[in-house]
This record gives sequence, C-alpha cells and structure tokens, in this order.
Amino acid sequence: MTNVQWDTKIIDGLLVENGRIVKGTIYIKNGEIAAIAQEDTLGEAKEVIDAKGLHVLPGLIDTHVHSRDPGPTYKEDFYYSSQAAAAGGITTILEMPNTTPPVSDVESFDNQVANLSGKAHVDFGLWGICVGDLNKKDIAPLHERGVIGFKFFWGYAVHAKTFQLMYNYKPGMEDVIPPFDDGEVYSMMKEVSKTGNLFAVHAENNHLIQAFTREVEARQGTSYDDLIQSRPELVEVTTVQSGIAMAKDLGTRLHILHVSSAGGVDAVKEAQEAGYPITVETCPHYLFLSDKDYDHVGPQMKVYPPVKYEKDQKRLWERVKDGTISHVCSDHAPHTEEEKDGELWSIPAGMCGVESLAPLLLTAVHDNRLLITDIARLLAEEPAKLHGIYPQKGSLQVGTDADFTLVDLQKSGTLKREELHSKSKVTAYDGFPLHGVPVRTIVRGKTVMKDGAIEGEAGYGQLVTPASSRKEAALS
Amino acid sequence: MTNVQWDTKIIDGLLVENGRIVKGTIYIKNGEIAAIAQEDTLGEAKEVIDAKGLHVLPGLIDTHVHSRDPGPTYKEDFYYSSQAAAAGGITTILEMPNTTPPVSDVESFDNQVANLSGKAHVDFGLWGICVGDLNKKDIAPLHERGVIGFKFFWGYAVHAKTFQLMYNYKPGMEDVIPPFDDGEVYSMMKEVSKTGNLFAVHAENNHLIQAFTREVEARQGTSYDDLIQSRPELVEVTTVQSGIAMAKDLGTRLHILHVSSAGGVDAVKEAQEAGYPITVETCPHYLFLSDKDYDHVGPQMKVYPPVKYEKDQKRLWERVKDGTISHVCSDHAPHTEEEKDGELWSIPAGMCGVESLAPLLLTAVHDNRLLITDIARLLAEEPAKLHGIYPQKGSLQVGTDADFTLVDLQKSGTLKREELHSKSKVTAYDGFPLHGVPVRTIVRGKTVMKDGAIEGEAGYGQLVTPASSRKEAALS
Amino acid sequence: MTNVQWDTKIIDGLLVENGRIVKGTIYIKNGEIAAIAQEDTLGEAKEVIDAKGLHVLPGLIDTHVHSRDPGPTYKEDFYYSSQAAAAGGITTILEMPNTTPPVSDVESFDNQVANLSGKAHVDFGLWGICVGDLNKKDIAPLHERGVIGFKFFWGYAVHAKTFQLMYNYKPGMEDVIPPFDDGEVYSMMKEVSKTGNLFAVHAENNHLIQAFTREVEARQGTSYDDLIQSRPELVEVTTVQSGIAMAKDLGTRLHILHVSSAGGVDAVKEAQEAGYPITVETCPHYLFLSDKDYDHVGPQMKVYPPVKYEKDQKRLWERVKDGTISHVCSDHAPHTEEEKDGELWSIPAGMCGVESLAPLLLTAVHDNRLLITDIARLLAEEPAKLHGIYPQKGSLQVGTDADFTLVDLQKSGTLKREELHSKSKVTAYDGFPLHGVPVRTIVRGKTVMKDGAIEGEAGYGQLVTPASSRKEAALS
Amino acid sequence: MTNVQWDTKIIDGLLVENGRIVKGTIYIKNGEIAAIAQEDTLGEAKEVIDAKGLHVLPGLIDTHVHSRDPGPTYKEDFYYSSQAAAAGGITTILEMPNTTPPVSDVESFDNQVANLSGKAHVDFGLWGICVGDLNKKDIAPLHERGVIGFKFFWGYAVHAKTFQLMYNYKPGMEDVIPPFDDGEVYSMMKEVSKTGNLFAVHAENNHLIQAFTREVEARQGTSYDDLIQSRPELVEVTTVQSGIAMAKDLGTRLHILHVSSAGGVDAVKEAQEAGYPITVETCPHYLFLSDKDYDHVGPQMKVYPPVKYEKDQKRLWERVKDGTISHVCSDHAPHTEEEKDGELWSIPAGMCGVESLAPLLLTAVHDNRLLITDIARLLAEEPAKLHGIYPQKGSLQVGTDADFTLVDLQKSGTLKREELHSKSKVTAYDGFPLHGVPVRTIVRGKTVMKDGAIEGEAGYGQLVTPASSRKEAALS
Ligand SMILES: [Zn+2]
Ligand SMILES: [Zn+2]
Ligand SMILES: [Zn+2]
Ligand SMILES: [Zn+2]
Ligand SMILES: [Zn+2]
Ligand SMILES: [Zn+2]
Ligand SMILES: [Zn+2]
Ligand SMILES: [Zn+2]
Repeated sequence: MTNVQWDTKIIDGLLVENGRIVKGTIYIKNGEIAAIAQEDTLGEAKEVIDAKGLHVLPGLIDTHVHSRDPGPTYKEDFYYSSQAAAAGGITTILEMPNTTPPVSDVESFDNQVANLSGKAHVDFGLWGICVGDLNKKDIAPLHERGVIGFKFFWGYAVHAKTFQLMYNYKPGMEDVIPPFDDGEVYSMMKEVSKTGNLFAVHAENNHLIQAFTREVEARQGTSYDDLIQSRPELVEVTTVQSGIAMAKDLGTRLHILHVSSAGGVDAVKEAQEAGYPITVETCPHYLFLSDKDYDHVGPQMKVYPPVKYEKDQKRLWERVKDGTISHVCSDHAPHTEEEKDGELWSIPAGMCGVESLAPLLLTAVHDNRLLITDIARLLAEEPAKLHGIYPQKGSLQVGTDADFTLVDLQKSGTLKREELHSKSKVTAYDGFPLHGVPVRTIVRGKTVMKDGAIEGEAGYGQLVTPASSRKEAALS
Repeated sequence: MTNVQWDTKIIDGLLVENGRIVKGTIYIKNGEIAAIAQEDTLGEAKEVIDAKGLHVLPGLIDTHVHSRDPGPTYKEDFYYSSQAAAAGGITTILEMPNTTPPVSDVESFDNQVANLSGKAHVDFGLWGICVGDLNKKDIAPLHERGVIGFKFFWGYAVHAKTFQLMYNYKPGMEDVIPPFDDGEVYSMMKEVSKTGNLFAVHAENNHLIQAFTREVEARQGTSYDDLIQSRPELVEVTTVQSGIAMAKDLGTRLHILHVSSAGGVDAVKEAQEAGYPITVETCPHYLFLSDKDYDHVGPQMKVYPPVKYEKDQKRLWERVKDGTISHVCSDHAPHTEEEKDGELWSIPAGMCGVESLAPLLLTAVHDNRLLITDIARLLAEEPAKLHGIYPQKGSLQVGTDADFTLVDLQKSGTLKREELHSKSKVTAYDGFPLHGVPVRTIVRGKTVMKDGAIEGEAGYGQLVTPASSRKEAALS
Repeated sequence: MTNVQWDTKIIDGLLVENGRIVKGTIYIKNGEIAAIAQEDTLGEAKEVIDAKGLHVLPGLIDTHVHSRDPGPTYKEDFYYSSQAAAAGGITTILEMPNTTPPVSDVESFDNQVANLSGKAHVDFGLWGICVGDLNKKDIAPLHERGVIGFKFFWGYAVHAKTFQLMYNYKPGMEDVIPPFDDGEVYSMMKEVSKTGNLFAVHAENNHLIQAFTREVEARQGTSYDDLIQSRPELVEVTTVQSGIAMAKDLGTRLHILHVSSAGGVDAVKEAQEAGYPITVETCPHYLFLSDKDYDHVGPQMKVYPPVKYEKDQKRLWERVKDGTISHVCSDHAPHTEEEKDGELWSIPAGMCGVESLAPLLLTAVHDNRLLITDIARLLAEEPAKLHGIYPQKGSLQVGTDADFTLVDLQKSGTLKREELHSKSKVTAYDGFPLHGVPVRTIVRGKTVMKDGAIEGEAGYGQLVTPASSRKEAALS
Repeated sequence: MTNVQWDTKIIDGLLVENGRIVKGTIYIKNGEIAAIAQEDTLGEAKEVIDAKGLHVLPGLIDTHVHSRDPGPTYKEDFYYSSQAAAAGGITTILEMPNTTPPVSDVESFDNQVANLSGKAHVDFGLWGICVGDLNKKDIAPLHERGVIGFKFFWGYAVHAKTFQLMYNYKPGMEDVIPPFDDGEVYSMMKEVSKTGNLFAVHAENNHLIQAFTREVEARQGTSYDDLIQSRPELVEVTTVQSGIAMAKDLGTRLHILHVSSAGGVDAVKEAQEAGYPITVETCPHYLFLSDKDYDHVGPQMKVYPPVKYEKDQKRLWERVKDGTISHVCSDHAPHTEEEKDGELWSIPAGMCGVESLAPLLLTAVHDNRLLITDIARLLAEEPAKLHGIYPQKGSLQVGTDADFTLVDLQKSGTLKREELHSKSKVTAYDGFPLHGVPVRTIVRGKTVMKDGAIEGEAGYGQLVTPASSRKEAALS
C-alpha cells in the first residue's frame, strides 16, 4: 500500500447519501473522491480525518445568497460571507445577481467571477439577472457562460442605465424602468425557456402590495400583523399562479423562490401533480418562525416575503416533508445593525442566514422533524440537481468534487449573534439552542472550517457551472 | 264569469319553467301574471292569445348589450336595439355602462334611465361601470339606485375626465388613466363586495395581449390564427385566475364575462367546486363558431375575446350543459358595415347579437344540443337570478311581470342580415338556417313583437332594478 | 263568478317551490291544482282554506318506509303508518318491498296495491325488491307495472321459497340463499339498468360486519361505541365504492340508501363530480343524533347502519346543504316497545320516523340550518324527481295533484312518544322540542290531517307510479 | 499495491445507480463491494472483469416468480428457473409461496429454504402465504423468520389440509375452504399490518369473474376479447378499491400485484397522492402486449389477469414513468407446452418470464421509452427497498453484496424460445428483437452467467431476508 499515496482519507464516517447511511472510508486525490471503501484498507494518505461517530454529508449548498458584493459592501462582502458559509458547513454558495452592477451579461459575469474568486473561501455559482429587454440578448450568452439559473425580481423597478433594482420606486422617476408587466415577464420567461435553464422568481404582486400598504397606512397600522397584511398570502398566490400559467404555456422550468404561505406552496403542488416542472424553495425563517415570534425577536425578523402565520408554517413543514419543496436555502441578505435598528416599517428587509442554515435544520433532525438523510436531500442533492451541478456537487460519488460537510449530531450549542462570521450580524436566532452542528467543512479535499474555526484562505473557492458539471454527466 | 275581465289571456300554451313543461293558460291583469290555470275556464279577457302548439317561456333576457347610446349612435341606438331585442324574443335588455358618458354615478344613471326610457321597446336594466378611484365613492350609491351589476373593463385605460374607455391607449396620453393594476382592481372589487352586488369582468390580460401582439407583428402575421395568437387562452386564464384569487379573498360575487376558452371556463369550474360564488357566461359566437369558420364568415366574426379553436368550442358546450356557465348572452356590439369592412387587424371587434341570440339557441334545441327547458334556464331564469331581478323577471310565477316569449319550435327560417332591426347589421350568421323561432314577445302583458313585426312603440319599456324585484321576494 | 265553482281554494298562503316563496291562492278542482292566482279573485269554492301566515309546500314525500304490512303487522300496519304520515305532513309514502311476502313480481305488486289501498290515508308508491336470479325475470315487468325503484338488500340472505330476508342468516340454513356475491349484484344491477329505473342499495358490507362483530364479541364489547365498531365507516365505504364502480361500468342510476358516514357520502360526491348519476339519501337520525346521544336516548336509537360520530354528523349536514344528498327520508321501521326494550346487541334495529321526519327538519329551519325552500327541495321536489313521479307529486304546478303540506313556522311544540300515530311508538326523539309544524295535510284536494287530527278515512290513498306521472310530463 | 489482493475487480464500467451514471471501478472482496474508485489504481485482483463500454447495474431482482418447486416440478423447478434467472441478468429471485406444500409457516419456510438452496444459481427470498385462520398464528413467526412479504390470493379457494390453492373451486368441494370473504381479508390484513411487512394481493374479484364468465359462456364466446370480457377492468378495480379502503383503515403497506388495467393503476395513484403507503407492480406482458397481439402470439399469452387493451397498455407505461408503479417483475409461471397447446379457455394461465424480463426492458431503453437509470430503479432499487433488502441488494454501495448485472446496450439479438433455460419454454416473445442484453450476471462476486452461458453451479445461491439486510441498515 505504500505505493499509493492519497491526499486525504476520511475514515470510518457514516456516509449519508440518497436516502441511506453506510459506514465507510473516502479517499481523496486531486480534490476529487478517488475511492470509497467499506474499510480503511486502501493505503496511506497525507492527511487522515477520523470521522468516527460523525455523519459525512455531500458538501452543503446554499442556493440563495446576497453577499452585497460588489455594491453596498459595508453590509457584507464575499470575503465575509464565504467564511460564514464555511463556518456553517456550506461548501458552495449560489450568489444572487442583484449586485452593483448586477450580473446581467457576459462581461459582468466575468467581472463577478474575478471579484468573488479573490475572496472565496468556498466554491460558488452565479445567478444571472433578467431585466427585460435591457438584457434579453444576454440571456443565451449568460446561459452559455454558465449561470446556474436566471432570477427575475417580479414587481421591482430597474434603473435603465445601471440595471439596479429600485426598491423605492415611484412612478415618474427618471431613467427608471417601471416594474415589468405580465407581457414582459412572459417574454423573459420565453427567452429563458429557450435555454432550458431555470427561471426563478421572487413572487410578490407589487401592485397588490401597494394597495394593501395603502390600506394599512390609512389605518395607521404599525404592528407586525399590519406588516403581514401589507403583503398577505394573496400577494404571493396571484404571482405564483400567473407564473405557473405562463410556465405551463411555455414549458418553462419555473422556480418559486422563498415561498412563505400555504396558498403559495399549494399552488405549486397542484402544478407538480399535473406533471409540470415547477419547483419551489423555502427558508429557515418560514419554518422556524411565525408571527407569534415577533414579540421576542423584534424587527430583526423582517424579511420579504414576510414570515406569516402558524398555519403557513405548518403547511410549509408538510411540503418540505412530502417533497413539494425541493430544498431549503437561507436568502442571506445582511444589513447593518444600525440599518435594522429602527421602526418596523422603515427598516430594510433581510437578515443573515448562510451560517445558520445548516445548524437550524440539523436541530430539526434532533427534534425528529427531519431525518439526517433529509438534510443531504434538502441542502445538497436537490439543490445540485436543480441547478445542473450534480453530481459534481451534491453527491458522494467517485470522480466528483471532494466536498463534504462533517456533522456531529451529538454536539449541542447555542447560536450566538456575536460569533457569526458575516460583516453584519443581524439574525433572528440569537440564543437559539442548537443540537447537531457542522464540525468540518471540506471543499475539493481541503478543510476550510474545523470545529468552528476558519481554515484556508480567501481565493481558494472556485466557480462552478452547469457546464463544468456536465463533463461528468456526459457519460450518461 | 262575465264579471271577471282579464286584460289578456294566453291559452293552451306549453308553459316552460324550472325544468318542466306543462300545458296551461295564463291570465294577465295590470301587466302581471294574475293567474295560471290548467284549462281556460277562468273567464273572458279583452285580448286572447292562442298559444296552442307554442312554447311559452318566461320573457328572455339579454344580459350583455352595448347599444352605443348615448355615444356613437351612428352605429346603433336604443330605439333600434330595443326593437332588435323585441324581434329576437328578448323582453329585457341589461345595458352595458361604457356609453358616452358612461354610467358611473347616480347622475349618469338617472340620465341614462331618462335617455333609454324614451326609446325602449322592451324593459331594461343598467350596469354600472367601475373606473377605480374615479368613481369609488359612487359604487354604493349606484348600488342603491339599482344597477344590476358592476362591470370592470380589466386592462383598459380610461379618460380621466370623460371616464371613456380608451381602446387605443398608449403610455403618455394626456388625461388618460392607464389600465388599472391588480391593487386597484382589488380595491374596486372590495368596494363592490361591500354592496353584495356582482363584480363582472372582461377578462383579458392587456399586458400579455401587447406582448403577443408584438410577436405577431414581428412575424407580420395577418391570418385569423394570428389574431387568436395575439389573444390566446393564456390571456384569459391568467386574468380569470387573478380575479378568482381576489374574489376568494374578498368573498366577492365575481362574474366572468364572455368566456371563450377551455382553460378560462375550467378555472371557474374549479372555483365553483370549491364552493365559491363565481359565475361565468358565454356568447353564441363561442358556441356556434370556431377558427374553422373564418374562411367563409370573414372579418365579421372578429370579437374580443376572439373566437378560438374547436377544442374550446367543445368544452364550452360541455360547460353550458353541466351548469358551470350560468347563462348565454349576446355581447351585442354593433359597428357599421363600413367600419367592419376592412383588414382583420384594424377593424373594430364586435357584432350584432341581441336579435339572433334566442333563434340560435332554439336551433340548438332542434339539433338536440339543448332542451327547450335549457333555453328558459339559460336565457331567463339564471340571468334573472344572477342579477337580482328574479322572479319579477325570468319566471312564470303569479304576481310577477307578464313577460313572455312565445316560441314555435316547428317553424324554420333563415337568418338574413338585411332583416335585422339594428341600425348596423353586421353579423356572422347571415344565411344561417334557423329551426325554432320566437313568434311573439310580450312585455308586461303587451305584445311588442308578433310574427317578426314590431308592435307597440318606443317608450313602453321600463327600467327594472333589483330593488323593484325585491318587493316581490320580500315574502321569503 | 258564481258560475265557477271550485272544489277548494287555499287562500293567501306563502307558496314555497323551486327555491322561491310567493304569496298566492291555489284553486283546486277534481283533486288537481286548477289554477294559481296572485289574489283571491277567481271565484267561490265549496271549501275555503285560509293559509294566511302559513307556508304552503308541495305535499311532502317519505321515500323510505317499512310499514311491516303484510307481515309482522303487530309492529305496524299501513292503516297506522299512513295515519302517522298524514299527521306528520307526508302526503305520499314510498313503501319498501321487504314485506311478507315481498314485492318481487307483478302478482305480489298487485296484491300489495290491493292490500295497501284499503288502508291508505295518503298516497303511496311501491318499491320492488331484487333477489337475484329468484326474480330476475320479474324486473322488467315490475318496472312496467310501476315500481318507483328497485331495492337491493346488499349482504342479506334470502329465503329461497318465500323470498324473505333472513336477518339471522348462518351458513347451512335450509332453503336459504346466502347473501348475494358481487357477481350476482352486478347481474341484478345490469337487469335494473336496462329498465332505466333506480337501483337502490342498503350499503353495509356483511362480511366485514361479521369480522368486526367477532372482534367486538372477542373483547366482550357491549357499549354503543362497540356497536359502531361492529359496523364502522369502512363497512359502508367498501360497499358504496363497489356499487359505484359497477354503476359506472353499467351506466346505472345507483342510489345509496340511508348514508351514515363521512366516507360513504364523500365517495358519492366524488362520483357525482365525475358526472355519474349516483344519488344518496340520509335520515334524520344521522343528522340529529350522534354517539354522544346514546347516554340519554338509549337503545331506542339503534338503527342499521348505526348512528355514528359527530364528525359524520357534521359532514352529512354539509352534504345536505351542498346538494350531494338528494333528499332526507325516515327509514320508518317500527318494532314494539317490548322488542326494543332489551340489551343493545340483541334488540332489533329500527324505529318510527314517518311522523317525525318533517317536524324535525322544520325545526332545523328554525335553527337556521336549513331554509324553508330546502324543505320543499329535500322532502318533495327531489324525491319526486328521483322516483319519476314529478311533477304529479312534488310540485305546485297547475294540472298536477293537489297535494299540500301547510306549515306554521311560528308554532312550537314537543315531540311526544305517546302522541305518535304508529302502532308501535319507539322513537329517539321523545321530548324533542319542535319549532315549526305541519298543521294541515292535503292529498289530492282533500284534507287528511288538520291541526294534528286525522281526517278522512282509510282507503282514500291511491297508488302513484312513474307511469301515471309520465302522462303529465308527456307534454315535454 | 501488491500487498492488497482483491478477489475481483470490475474495471472501467459505467456504474448506474440512483438516477446517475458514472465511470468507475469496483473492487470486490469476500462477496461484498469493498471499494469503488474512479480509476483502476487500487491494486491487483485475482479476477479482472473489463467492463469498458458496459453498464454495471445493481444486481437485478425479479420479485414475482413461481418456480413450481416443490410441486408440479414437471413444469419447472428451481434448478432450472434459477439458471433462467442468471441467464436473464437476475441476481435475486423472490419466490412465490403457492408451492406444494405452500410456505405457510416456519416449518415450511425452513423446508423451502433447504429445498431451494440446493438448486439455487442465484440468491432468493421467500414470500409467505396468507390462508386466513389456517395460518393466522404463523404470520408473526414467518415475519420473524424473514419472509420478504405476504401474499394473499384474493378470490381463490384453499384446501383445508394441504393449504393448496384450488384453481377450479366449485362450492361443495370437500375439505375446501371457499374464497375468503372481505371480513377474512380484513383480518389477514390486520395480522400482517402488525408485523409492518408487505401485504400483497392478486386483485381480481372472483365473484365478478364468475358472473362475467357466465355471460361469456351464455353467448358461447371464445375469442380473446371474450377472455378479457370475463375478467374486465371492473374485476380489478373493485378489488383494488376494497383493498385500499381496508389498508387505509389499518395503515397497511398494501401492494397490488401485476396490475393490468388503467382503472386499477389509477386507483393506486389516487391513494398514493392522498399519502398512503400503497404500491403496485406490473409485468412485461402488460407493457409489451395488448389484445391486438393475440392474432400473432396466440394462447401463449394467456395470463391472469389477462392482457387487456391498448388504452390500458398506454396508461401502464405512463404510470411506470411517473413512478406510480414501483417496479416491474415477470410473474414467471411456466406450464408445459402441451398444457399450453389447447383451446384458449381451457389452457392454464401463465408463461415463462424471469429470463426475458430484463432483456425486454432493456429494449425499451433502446426504443427511448425508458432510461438505463430507470432499469436500475425498476428492477433493482425499488424492489429491494420495497421488500426490505436494500441496500444489501439493489445498490452499488460499499459494504453490500457484490451483485451486478453487466449490460451491453449495443448488443442486439432475438429472443428465441428454444434458448430459454426454463424447463418449459412457453413465451409470448419468441422471435422478439432485443436491443441491449445482460452479458454477465454476478452474485456476491461470483459470475453465474457470462455471455449467455451459465457458470457456477446449483447450490451457490443463498437466502436473503430483510433481517440479513437490516444489519447493514442498522447504521442509520
Ligand atoms: Zn426575494
Ligand atoms: Zn433573495
Ligand atoms: Zn368585453
Ligand atoms: Zn361586451
Ligand atoms: Zn337499510
Ligand atoms: Zn330501510
Ligand atoms: Zn396472480
Ligand atoms: Zn403470480
């Protein structure tokens, strides 16, 4: 055996994949899984990781991250967010495109790859943005270049020159393109459909939001319930329905982002049962919080779509279990503590999430709400398949990237705001008890986090694209 | 018996009502049904109408008529359209509100009553228009005044001063309010919901129409199929779905006007099965025509929503039979022959219909597609119930208005364009063979049409309102 | 007017029919409705009934009555049960065929007509029995003779010579035909399907009942819940499902008798939504009682299928309201007080019902669970339509039988066991408060009950058949 | 590497598992998968199998085999059938229990293990039989002993002493227990439910079959369509429905064997969508044949349930693709050519299948009806999971049995009756073109078939039980 020299071997772990758990040893060479064996008999390695008692999951993926980079990097940047990811057991970040400038064409894609590459502690993929006719011609090239999906911010205005989303759009603003209408949405969806890539939407009906907000303002509502009433279930349902009707017409792979309501997720379920390729994700805040938590959590938990009622929370758990919801992601969207420290209505929506995503879901395993195999499914396998980067990412298969998240299900702890690795540390979960935590994060064979401490350095992370993954899948 | 003097008696007819047919004699006094008897034994009448061999239906109602009055009365006016109605067996017209000026408040309602009353050969009810905040405050008063429903032209722009619909809206037009957005629609629907009255919508998604039209224009499409492709099923489905989602939220009595597609009507069916008070109508052109007919009919058949495919036609017949579709109406919308005599894309949509509505459906009885009892249901009972004017209208009940349509199911004929009573005579049915025709129209005891000839005079017709009908229903 | 002489007129009543209520006067001649008028102006009558303040309903029908005649007439006979009917506002009884001998062929039909005619205080129709090959050849003749439907006692054994149902069947009994198997059921259903008449089933799976009973016996269960557990929902569901599957295959008009469970009624609902002509009835005990009532009612409430749980009761009310359940009937099945006064498991199932049917449902009107128009629907219109005797029975139409039930909704009372007119007086409702009672029962123009007192005499009641009714309907 | 001595390595194959395909090398030691590696770098092996260009699937499983052993071994015995299995790429047979004597208790189980072990060329699991009260007490012990499921022959009589199925049951036969009734079925299902094991049913309603057969006999029908008409869809649907209703009540893992009709499979789909653990299999004859094939295939294709219509065939393919049908199996049920060579009605039902199962489905891959990954799913992964022997069987996971089926998708051939390895060679597929064939079958590391030739010897095959598999799964 001395003539075999593995780079690394992870011995005696409980390998979790595809719904099963088996004891085994993984051999790594050149950043890939070179072999998997039942016993540790295949020779020596430079590095030996003893995984006895630990679960070895395919490296976890957070598909929905806003690292504010480039852009308002005082809130967060990729140097920080990719450390937070590593700390939280995430080996791949899929980065949202609404940066400044956004990822709207090949040039900005390339620039963003360069920008993030220098700061990356973990691997990353890039979303492309859809801004209607402004970048219609760029959809196909972006697909070719390797975006892992296209994101459309339904109901948001866009600056005609910078392509920035305008969160405070008022009619009449100069150089601002008003929120796209249904015809324009259909055109974008059609363009994306041609590529076969994913068309993902933030699904809140802006015009209804405005109407409901006017009603709340008229009654001077300021409570958390008023916030929900300004963006109630109907806001999500009408947009999801319209999106689905269009996607059925076009054969689009439509993906509903961060679903928050019973009605929203059930509209997707109905479409799935009718055989359409419509998918949907949700986030920890919709699973672990409800309006009842506002009293003790406060404005930190303001997100869009807002966290709703217990009935929604309950339905979302059911849909996570029955597979309607393909995966769970963080919608990591940091703001500074100063920004978040204000009146509920005026503070921005969003909070940190990439670091708490896996620990929260692992705690659900402890609480018997999920199985450990569900964690692999929801945070690795399904995200990778959905975005076309499976099995390079999201599997424990020989010949693929040696990305792993080692989990100690016996280890307990407490989520502490001050220990988060993000630049801003706004979270709804400060003090939340954790049972089961990632204890080691390995990206392409290299440990980037061990026992909570960041290892490795910025710049190690690499771009992953469906194209790079296709090489492996080409065998089929 | 000589001391009883009835005004009129209709003897020995086959009385058709509520799904059954019975031989009997009807006695009329003071414009009302005073008695119904099995045999003609109740005494003498000034006028005796022998209905032997004829079916006596409750006076038929056309719920969807645009008489262009006041407004472009060179196309049509109520003097003409109410004669066309009488000729076609219609005893009550429900007149659409998009006149010039529209029926948008109590004053315009009263003016319209005065205007139409002078010309009316048959009775009439009035729709009120919804133009958003422009007449939000007028919704409740209009309801009190007696509109039979509120109509909202979803997707149409409105002139801010005249409240006229702007059919050729382009962004930037002066004094023009762009098509109402979903938030504004919700607000309108909420306002109407408070009254408990009907909220009826023309359901075509304007933004999708624009997008599809751009596509057709881009390929320089000019065929009838291109016309459909500019307003395909999806256009109807998305609007119907959004309307239904809002109506579910608000508890609204939502009514979908002139449904034209399989997907549109099935969305309503699903909502009905879930227990919501959503209703839907269709028109003869969607039942008797399909795209296949364009070759021989030509541009006359251009209507909005356009007549679609045989699959839609087939589904609509099914939904008429199974009761999903509450009633059939004409969408009488005349244009001059000159206006209609042009290129498919530029000519206006709409055609005559009030006079051919009943004859076409009676021909379907001859063809075994409907029963004669279905005619009473679809053209009298259900329309009257839906609009709150039952049983004053739409029934054969003692104590209600003596409105009747006498039908000879054995009589055949041909629909001839030149014999229509409308000012403009555009129709898709010129030369259409008829089997079963109305031979006498009686309004409140007075014959207004006999064997095709108009009797009586302009000004006889009266306004009917839910309020006037409620007097009778008060007994319950 | 003196030259008109009506037999009877009912003046100023609130006429209830087809979902509407209108004030009017009814004129009767020769046992038929000769005329209906708004005001009482049509002349004099020998008898004048002042219905001011009363609701005048079409004569109510009880479709499910076991008068034990001929047979164990010590329990009940038609002389008594038809008085009980009259007292309870019922003008037509549809009599079940499991008499001794049963109504299994034309001869027994004729004999039964003769037998009942001599005792009848109200009109009556006859069910025919299905006993497999024993009377397969009699199905068509019975249909021609005028049965209002065919009843099949699924799961019951039959005596091969007397055709009696054997309630205590054990394998091996001499001359006993064991319960019919699915193949025989299919054959019977096929035979009835050819006639177009109704195939009605008592739907409890006998083999499952035996298995569940063995389980209960094994644990020596004696409580009311044990009784339910011996005939739980599954017993009804499997039989209903099998019946529906066969009926779909054969196009049968299948009717499920006395449905008792949520699962049973929902299986019918599903079939109806798929467009099949499957109907279902329920009885007052399933609506007004649940297992919770056993403590204070006791063994009197033992019926088959047994009254089940509150969840079933709740669902049945929903299905009465939404129209899934076509009508409500009594399943009048008297036993003597001695027979019923025993141990729950050994006493026979069944109780009186024909007299309390209408008062109980009228009390539901008072309690806002039903409308008075629902009473006409559930106890007159739908039963008559289902059994082909509409509009002769079940309508207020001129030219049809002058059957009426006059109801005083303001009158309160108490149901008293000792005041019942049946021979045996077993009821679950002794002491039940009533709000709204029938105050006059009129059969073909003749009052048979007034203010609770029986008028008229035995032998007045006549047979009604679909054929006799068809004469009237022939006009259509 | 010389100090590592693998028993066998399979190099450079395309490993097919869990929906993905990857190139790799498998290392085998002691009959288990010891390691999997991307490249062949892990050292030498005694045996090297070059799988270049071949697909390596988890060893395929045929879950439904009747080897007639012990019993009418002139038709087939396990020595032959297990060679046929090896020849057809099957590494594990699940043997049906209706042998003579049947596998009805622990003793007969042990005897059968001994009997088959001596003849086995491949591994095998055993079904246990359910014969009502006759072996109710044996259900739990059989489960403990390791049956892979319980089979109930719904509608078949059983000999009271030998427990043999009586295929020609007539009432009155001595010592024969008539077909179990619904109550007895429920009791059996309840008993099996307690074990948590599978309750599998042949689902044809015997009483309906008898009734339909009488009808066919009455019209002297002898065609293949008459055969179908004697066991039409309704026969399957009613039994499936009853089974499902009971299973819902009991929480049973119900499995529907060899589904043959659209209605049958859709009833299962509905139950699955409602969340119940109901599964269903089908067989190649229902997928590759329809009534249209009878003309050229002839009586050989007689099976029970009979192959039905193209509409059924089409629906079954859809349900194979959408996952409603968990797996495909052969229902291998040989008869001699003499027995099969007769008149359609009198010859026995059943034919060979274990050898043609995989080649037929592989040909469907060639025809683009299935993916190669579907073969692994339908013939290995799902069967193993369903019967509790996963991942020991049905996976490519390290530490599990080294069972493989090597497939050459490029190889074509023809199915020739005379080349089958079964004792009897009745098949419907003689002359059927094959594209894609198993070229090597490996059981626990040992090649038992190579290029069509049987290797190894009788007695190599071993029993597999859920218990033996649980050892591996215990890690989870
Ligand atoms: Zn968003
Ligand atoms: Zn986001
Ligand atoms: Zn319109
Ligand atoms: Zn219109
Ligand atoms: Zn019964
Ligand atoms: Zn009964
Ligand atoms: Zn079988
Ligand atoms: Zn079999």
